[in-house]
Amino acid sequence: MPLFATMQGMIAPLHNDTFLRACLRQPTAYTPVWLMRQAGRYLPEYRAARAKAGSFMALASNTDFATEVTMQPLDRFPLDAAILFSDILTVPDAMGLGLSFALGEGPRFARPVRDEAAVAKLEVPDMAKLRYVFDAVASIRKALNGRVPLIGFSGSPWTLACYMVEGAGSDDYHLVKSLLYSRPDLMHRVLTVNADAVAVYLNSQIEAGAQAVMIFDSWGGVLADGAFQQFSLAYTQRVLQQVRTEYEGTRVPRIVFTKGGGLWLDEIAALQPDVIGLDWTVNLAKARESVGAHVALQGNLDPAVLLAGTAQIEAQALKVLESFAAPDQASDATGHIFNLGHGVSQRTAPENVGVLVEAVHRLSRRMRTPNASVLV
Amino acid sequence: MPLFATMQGMIAPLHNDTFLRACLRQPTAYTPVWLMRQAGRYLPEYRAARAKAGSFMALASNTDFATEVTMQPLDRFPLDAAILFSDILTVPDAMGLGLSFALGEGPRFARPVRDEAAVAKLEVPDMAKLRYVFDAVASIRKALNGRVPLIGFSGSPWTLACYMVEGAGSDDYHLVKSLLYSRPDLMHRVLTVNADAVAVYLNSQIEAGAQAVMIFDSWGGVLADGAFQQFSLAYTQRVLQQVRTEYEGTRVPRIVFTKGGGLWLDEIAALQPDVIGLDWTVNLAKARESVGAHVALQGNLDPAVLLAGTAQIEAQALKVLESFAAPDQASDATGHIFNLGHGVSQRTAPENVGVLVEAVHRLSRRMRTPNASVLV
Repeated sequence: MPLFATMQGMIAPLHNDTFLRACLRQPTAYTPVWLMRQAGRYLPEYRAARAKAGSFMALASNTDFATEVTMQPLDRFPLDAAILFSDILTVPDAMGLGLSFALGEGPRFARPVRDEAAVAKLEVPDMAKLRYVFDAVASIRKALNGRVPLIGFSGSPWTLACYMVEGAGSDDYHLVKSLLYSRPDLMHRVLTVNADAVAVYLNSQIEAGAQAVMIFDSWGGVLADGAFQQFSLAYTQRVLQQVRTEYEGTRVPRIVFTKGGGLWLDEIAALQPDVIGLDWTVNLAKARESVGAHVALQGNLDPAVLLAGTAQIEAQALKVLESFAAPDQASDATGHIFNLGHGVSQRTAPENVGVLVEAVHRLSRRMRTPNASVLV
Repeated sequence: MPLFATMQGMIAPLHNDTFLRACLRQPTAYTPVWLMRQAGRYLPEYRAARAKAGSFMALASNTDFATEVTMQPLDRFPLDAAILFSDILTVPDAMGLGLSFALGEGPRFARPVRDEAAVAKLEVPDMAKLRYVFDAVASIRKALNGRVPLIGFSGSPWTLACYMVEGAGSDDYHLVKSLLYSRPDLMHRVLTVNADAVAVYLNSQIEAGAQAVMIFDSWGGVLADGAFQQFSLAYTQRVLQQVRTEYEGTRVPRIVFTKGGGLWLDEIAALQPDVIGLDWTVNLAKARESVGAHVALQGNLDPAVLLAGTAQIEAQALKVLESFAAPDQASDATGHIFNLGHGVSQRTAPENVGVLVEAVHRLSRRMRTPNASVLV
């Protein structure tokens, strides 16, 4: 019996389970592909929707808009997964920190957490405040109608803490790092609350219909060796220990992505996520060697490649595929999900995403055919 | 005969050669320490000098100012090396690109290199245009009067290219990466000119009196695996192949620092620099294992530690020392130069630098004493 034959509730069976199979290191006919920030500013239809909604949060918190925007890239490209349109910072927003996005700038919190009193007040938010997210998940599942699986996500406890303390993005993270080095006790309290909140949040997404979940540790890579293990990895582990591994008899793969975490892959693998996301600095062959056979890898094309022409995109996509599995081992290459090493740049021409998706499908399918030539 | 007994010209013999000995992996009584950007905005006397000079370039290009500012941290702290006060971008400035620094912002080029015509015009600049740098080196050597050695430096060919193409700092380096992926031929021409220019420039610094040289590959870490080797590492190698390894019978150690380069240490070590600089994400014990016994390591405290208190600074300094050599191996720990993993933050209290330097000297001296306790 195939693993994904039964789907939840009234929803259509899954037509394309390539992504989920690759997450669990099962054989697939080709390498599945989706792209971080595949629904985003590089798409004119996204910019139109955002203009109509008025703000990023209005877009993300409205079920119809969130569904529409999630589906946009799937209507253009044969991607193998959808990802919930939302932000990594919804959880601290629900804690009452007041999230906003100024146009052309990053996120900002009106009430950052910078002293003992603010830390003491933090608690796991009532999930009712995040109902708009779970409603969006259910609505997107309906809209997908079984085309491809839906990925839910959250920021990691550490990454949430960075924004919560800094109040915005930062060049050097001096506020959060000062807190970490000066008052590790406060930092641990923030991270404990974050981890427990993220776990409940991801479980609620799964119960609403998310078929895989991803933890974005976008700022784990700014930490020193030693501090990373103590303040990021330990709390990602605390999340994973509480997040469902299956729902209604179906496995729910868990993906951990630490940007700039290439030096700690063996330690990330020890948490036993199903998939490790990799940025473009990592060599996939070395990564496979370092994490062993028990975890799938997701990545890792440099998003800047999508700013070049068709021939370059195809050549670089082939390089990534071949770095995961050299042509002579390609017929049993399981456990690779093609993605970028970071989000799609807003400067990307939409047609270049089409070129990439088509190339990954065609080239990986051909690589899995014994004795086939894989010339682009 | 000690290796550094004879010094060039009329200059006093070197009183403290601990830094140079550690670069060459010779035994030292303690771990030498200097800090990237040790002369900089965290020092009130630096800010006063900069205000007097009027601009960063006026400060760097005036022999007296450059000498004064280089000496400032040495007059406060018993650092084991001085580093020329200058900028990594002097070479492209001498190529005619028009370097300036707006207050509170990073560097900016008036005439960035973005098309075939601009690339074609690039050539190795006449070193006479950089005479202010060599004059500063000679003047600083005189002012040092043998106290500690003087380090010269340059940006790496790739790092120079980033600024030359982008025209300024960047979040995503999309212009230089677009050029790299779309027109690798143009990128290689820029890098070849840069490498040859950097080599002549460093040799001129050595001839003027620099006793070690450091190549700052500040932006090597933004490249994808594969691209790093082709567009950064290969040109650092081209520099090293042309830079003097000794001058007037004295060895001149070469330091290569790739920020974010922790995944490529074995490949950097294969270029056979004397020292590899490490950022704070790297575990020193793993790095030693990866690069072998033929290269010294420099680093790698997170600069944010200097924003905390005395006890935290001492504890974190001890952690770095012990990660290079566990207490039971410390008596033969050679080849470590203590430094930060990046420049001193402008937010650092000057007295904290004093705390760090004293702690590194005291703790490392004690660690080298067999059977001594190293409790802070």
